[in-house]
Amino acid sequence: MSVEEGTSAKQGHSEETSPRGDLFDPTCPTRGLLDRVGSKWTVMTVLLLAEASDLRFSELRRAMAGVSQKMLSQTLRQLARDGLVSRRVDADITPPAVHYALTPLGRSLVPALTALRSWAEEHMREVDDHSARAGSR
Amino acid sequence: MSVEEGTSAKQGHSEETSPRGDLFDPTCPTRGLLDRVGSKWTVMTVLLLAEASDLRFSELRRAMAGVSQKMLSQTLRQLARDGLVSRRVDADITPPAVHYALTPLGRSLVPALTALRSWAEEHMREVDDHSARAGSR
Repeated sequence: MSVEEGTSAKQGHSEETSPRGDLFDPTCPTRGLLDRVGSKWTVMTVLLLAEASDLRFSELRRAMAGVSQKMLSQTLRQLARDGLVSRRVDADITPPAVHYALTPLGRSLVPALTALRSWAEEHMREVDDHSARAGSR
Repeated sequence: MSVEEGTSAKQGHSEETSPRGDLFDPTCPTRGLLDRVGSKWTVMTVLLLAEASDLRFSELRRAMAGVSQKMLSQTLRQLARDGLVSRRVDADITPPAVHYALTPLGRSLVPALTALRSWAEEHMREVDDHSARAGSR
């Protein structure tokens, strides 16, 4: 059976009764989505793509020191699956180059992730000092 | 050896050279902090405490349908360790009641988590539909 684009066989969350998610509803996919978009590799990937028109895998990996090839692949695959990142293959060169870019949906996430990153960078020191004291008690 | 509050024996990130964290520095604790504060249980706990002066464990658990006792305990312990949540024991009643509240540092995180929650709830449907189509291809 084929499913046409724009239709979905999934039940629940119909446009009429539940146009919006609810983080506090345990049956709502919002929780899983929040966990995915709030993870450090997702945040880094989205913020890097927000600053460029598109980036290749190797460029992303270089900018995200410490990420493994596998973890970056998984992160990009999940972002593409969620519709936040698009993938464009340039077959004119050998080997073909794959370019990643934010979709409009991905762009809509940038302000929230920028706020989260800013908070973490601004308060890292205070949290780290608190955590060190807690550990020494 | 006792360590006074406000002093820290930890090296690195000195006030002079690195007052601010850097998400893209693999040696900086910002990444770990981001992963902790962006997880669904942390987001839910902080946002519930933001709406009340304080809450007891049982009240938090009831409001966070689906959380296990162990997961909520771990979440609260980590939030306390990071200095985002304070714990007050009311020993006047039996058994003693433990109340949790946001610290000023925890309150500073509320706007960023509110933005992240709003994005997830507003776009859950769109992401879910995209994900369903990606899965059926």
